[in-house]
Amino acid sequence: MKHTISVLVENRFGVLSHVSGLFSSRGFNIDSLAVGTTEDPTVSRMTLVVDADKRILEQVVKQLRKLIDVIKVQDITGQDFVDRELVLVKVNADSETRSEVMQIVDIFRAKIVDVSPKSVTVEITGDQGKNKGIIDLLKQFGIKEIVRTGRVAMTRDTNGKR
Amino acid sequence: MKHTISVLVENRFGVLSHVSGLFSSRGFNIDSLAVGTTEDPTVSRMTLVVDADKRILEQVVKQLRKLIDVIKVQDITGQDFVDRELVLVKVNADSETRSEVMQIVDIFRAKIVDVSPKSVTVEITGDQGKNKGIIDLLKQFGIKEIVRTGRVAMTRDTNGKR
Repeated sequence: MKHTISVLVENRFGVLSHVSGLFSSRGFNIDSLAVGTTEDPTVSRMTLVVDADKRILEQVVKQLRKLIDVIKVQDITGQDFVDRELVLVKVNADSETRSEVMQIVDIFRAKIVDVSPKSVTVEITGDQGKNKGIIDLLKQFGIKEIVRTGRVAMTRDTNGKR
Repeated sequence: MKHTISVLVENRFGVLSHVSGLFSSRGFNIDSLAVGTTEDPTVSRMTLVVDADKRILEQVVKQLRKLIDVIKVQDITGQDFVDRELVLVKVNADSETRSEVMQIVDIFRAKIVDVSPKSVTVEITGDQGKNKGIIDLLKQFGIKEIVRTGRVAMTRDTNGKR
């Protein structure tokens, strides 16, 4: 099962490889990883999506909590959260096909961020379902390059829980 | 100086900690890191932003290229590229301040993705300059939480170079 783990860490060198090493030493792969600083520049937040057995994951989470540079670990999988991913896609598009590509971009409320005579670069944000939908549609034109940020997630405040 | 490095790797466990370990063993910190699969699900792309001396960075890039699971390494710093980062910001907002927050969100073409009686969650995409601009403006209301994806980048096709 896919789990979304949010880890708050001190922004020191070595933390990143330490944390990702803990996961890979258990033999489970990291589907996506996003790391960036928080409101406090000395603190970073890592959001990991891993495919893992719940019991083994719990062990890894316990080990993570023991690391000095790890401030907080949350498995937000079961919780109500907003998740987003940003994808840049460079797709073939010439004067004949460009308008069709632009239609798809409009329907999905994506954005064109670069154009050349033979390609357009599209910026897509959304949850992974939406992003898969538009990428699947763009495939017919030929995709030259894809870059993804990996998923980030934030728990909802709606119930006043936090 | 800040460098943006794009690394194409085989999507196997251990690769991530191996690559990030190479950087941290040289003592330089990773400002941001984004990892996601590409058009080929067996291949992932890592985009790293590191603050590093050019000469030492070149050594690390050479070492990266020697790793079996590393397919391609590019330092795209000097090149013409589109860069984007996605940020989720949960900001205090009640019935009195919500409209002011919404104005700022509109001006920066950001999106509100969740609302509760005491907060709104804003999705921002852009380069780091724009994102810093809106976050600085939202600070006056009190920021409860920030999650960033880290920067991703794609070279421009504009000159037909690629």
